[in-house]
Amino acid sequence: MQQPTSLPRRHLLAGSASALAAAGLASFQSQAMAQAAAPAAKPLPGYASFKNADAVIVHSSTTIETKRSAFGSSVVTPTNQLYVRNNLPTPPESIVADRDAWPVQIDGVKKPRQLTVRELKTMGLETVTMVLQCSGNGRAFFPSKPSGTQWTVGAAGCVVWSGVPVRDVVKALGGVADGMVYMTGTGGEVLPAGLDPKSVIVERSVPLAALEDALLAWEMNGEPVSLAHGGPLRLIVPGYTGVNNIKYIKQLAFTAKESEAHIMSHGYRISPPGSKGDPSQPSVQEMSVKSWINSPIPEDGNPAAGTVQIQGVAFGGMNAVKGVEVSIDGGKTWKQARLVGPDMGKFAWRQFVLQAQLPKGTYQLASRATDVKGNVQPETRGENQSGYNNTSWADHAVTVTVA
Amino acid sequence: MQQPTSLPRRHLLAGSASALAAAGLASFQSQAMAQAAAPAAKPLPGYASFKNADAVIVHSSTTIETKRSAFGSSVVTPTNQLYVRNNLPTPPESIVADRDAWPVQIDGVKKPRQLTVRELKTMGLETVTMVLQCSGNGRAFFPSKPSGTQWTVGAAGCVVWSGVPVRDVVKALGGVADGMVYMTGTGGEVLPAGLDPKSVIVERSVPLAALEDALLAWEMNGEPVSLAHGGPLRLIVPGYTGVNNIKYIKQLAFTAKESEAHIMSHGYRISPPGSKGDPSQPSVQEMSVKSWINSPIPEDGNPAAGTVQIQGVAFGGMNAVKGVEVSIDGGKTWKQARLVGPDMGKFAWRQFVLQAQLPKGTYQLASRATDVKGNVQPETRGENQSGYNNTSWADHAVTVTVA
Repeated sequence: MQQPTSLPRRHLLAGSASALAAAGLASFQSQAMAQAAAPAAKPLPGYASFKNADAVIVHSSTTIETKRSAFGSSVVTPTNQLYVRNNLPTPPESIVADRDAWPVQIDGVKKPRQLTVRELKTMGLETVTMVLQCSGNGRAFFPSKPSGTQWTVGAAGCVVWSGVPVRDVVKALGGVADGMVYMTGTGGEVLPAGLDPKSVIVERSVPLAALEDALLAWEMNGEPVSLAHGGPLRLIVPGYTGVNNIKYIKQLAFTAKESEAHIMSHGYRISPPGSKGDPSQPSVQEMSVKSWINSPIPEDGNPAAGTVQIQGVAFGGMNAVKGVEVSIDGGKTWKQARLVGPDMGKFAWRQFVLQAQLPKGTYQLASRATDVKGNVQPETRGENQSGYNNTSWADHAVTVTVA
Repeated sequence: MQQPTSLPRRHLLAGSASALAAAGLASFQSQAMAQAAAPAAKPLPGYASFKNADAVIVHSSTTIETKRSAFGSSVVTPTNQLYVRNNLPTPPESIVADRDAWPVQIDGVKKPRQLTVRELKTMGLETVTMVLQCSGNGRAFFPSKPSGTQWTVGAAGCVVWSGVPVRDVVKALGGVADGMVYMTGTGGEVLPAGLDPKSVIVERSVPLAALEDALLAWEMNGEPVSLAHGGPLRLIVPGYTGVNNIKYIKQLAFTAKESEAHIMSHGYRISPPGSKGDPSQPSVQEMSVKSWINSPIPEDGNPAAGTVQIQGVAFGGMNAVKGVEVSIDGGKTWKQARLVGPDMGKFAWRQFVLQAQLPKGTYQLASRATDVKGNVQPETRGENQSGYNNTSWADHAVTVTVA
């Protein structure tokens, strides 16, 4: 142990922490362990090359997660660290070469027609801040280990969208046609050849009422929507999980029936464990109340004993957040946290902070949000085959050692 | 004219627009004219290499402006297109290598001491959205052509900052010492050798009352404050012009007198035209009510006749915006615009939009904001030697041709 730089990593990892600490090498050891534990980072795919590689985890070429330690405390998630989850390969860059020329067909209205982004920009303007969250965010916390991307908290962000309200478009086209009960969006991805289009196309139906808050958005966080996030035009359905916010939207239709695309009829269903998705099961649509702590977390190292600012984010899905409680003892006792920062509307998340005096020791930090309708974030997840909609406060708790 | 590709540019520029249009070459001509008119773009300096070169104008290595056409309509200005104005060369990257170790000396309190960013992070947390605007924004509109960067509207942005409230720091250090009437921040730039430090150091005093809203901020728009914008730690004084928001802050002192640094005593003074700055003149500090239109503008080409969404931003400096009026006839008549998007607090800007029916013709578009105290954006600028504080609605009007 006298010549640590010549120790093979294996030896170092097997060494006694206290002996290393005595030799002043604790930080060297933890660094080596972190390097040994972390799998080699995958490179960013080309369409997402603008992402901050230090702030994200690349799961695959179509799934990129924001690191929990990168969320910060400034409400809006920077575009360069927002998660990505694509159901099909990203379309070619050529579709954003002339953004204003992108066409979307509006059907199921009295006067159906195709509109370009250029035309949409004359029809109205609204800006909405909302939590964009993948249906499977929190899947990694299911003990059943459902297949799919092992997201923890980072398949979510709070994003500002600008575009035309869908209600303005509908009004200009004579209103919704009689008998329609769904709003159905179809993505403009290039479909793999040789397959039944219904088996792969990204097409989702949401209740007609969702049109009241929906946008056809050309701008995200102050810039034209990037290809990675659905540009030139994305359907935004505030309060609904990510998959319902159709990228590269090429058709927006008001329909009497739900889409028969597989991603609607069988995908994104709350299926009992062990079963397959089918149209009789609930679809993954509206989000519900959820929160988690972003600091302190083990990834950031051990905070010093004394005053600690315990902070995180909370959102209500369809409803504004009313308050957040924080526990330092794994949920035995709770204290009301303070909501801080700007309130960007009911679909945005709120930051919260609880200032706590923490002597040396180990703490289980948890947060529990309540929305304005009185819905309380539950302790346990709702078990389901695919690991959707995990809002369990217990699953999102973190164990932190104060040194 | 039959072989346009062989025409020399001179000829093309001198050619008749209608003849070129008849030959289907109008877009070719306008492209050539734009290329001829635009000076060669300066490259981004290294510390600002993350900026979107298409969204900014590089005036010099220390002055970078957001293009009016790049502001978008999503409230928060993306970091990669926010303006930069540095009074001294940017410090070396090494100062952001260990951000938490950055020290700031707090003086003029009962218990003065040095605090690191790591310590500040335990003392409190707040998030504030505010307009950051250079004192000289709008200087280019002064007919007197004051020396200095010829900013039009783009030396401004709306930015989210997170950090510790200065009032929390002051409270922890026993309160402000007796007799202090200013809050004085000192920047940590490396000073040029061989000069009297007072002649170059960035040190500004603001009234003590400003401490109530001030932050020591380590995060901007959800990321650690970049070196370009004052990281690792910046003093944020909401409602005050950019120069008062001290970058790389190394000392925050509560003082009985204003700083004697030249940038305080003689710089940033409202000097009568033809005179030099001196301490008897008003200092450039609080911002006042202002707005401008970002779309449509000539840079984006001619909008089509019909419905047009006239949109822009408005802010009140120290006070929230109450409303914005828009004129399409150069200020002869006005209509109330609609405020859209999230209200991020009184120091943030608001987006506004007026939907107008515009037949073919030429329009002078202007906007005029009013704050909650009843202050109305003035028609004319306040003349001063250095071109500060231009809030004139007439200067910010744009002439647009609807085709």
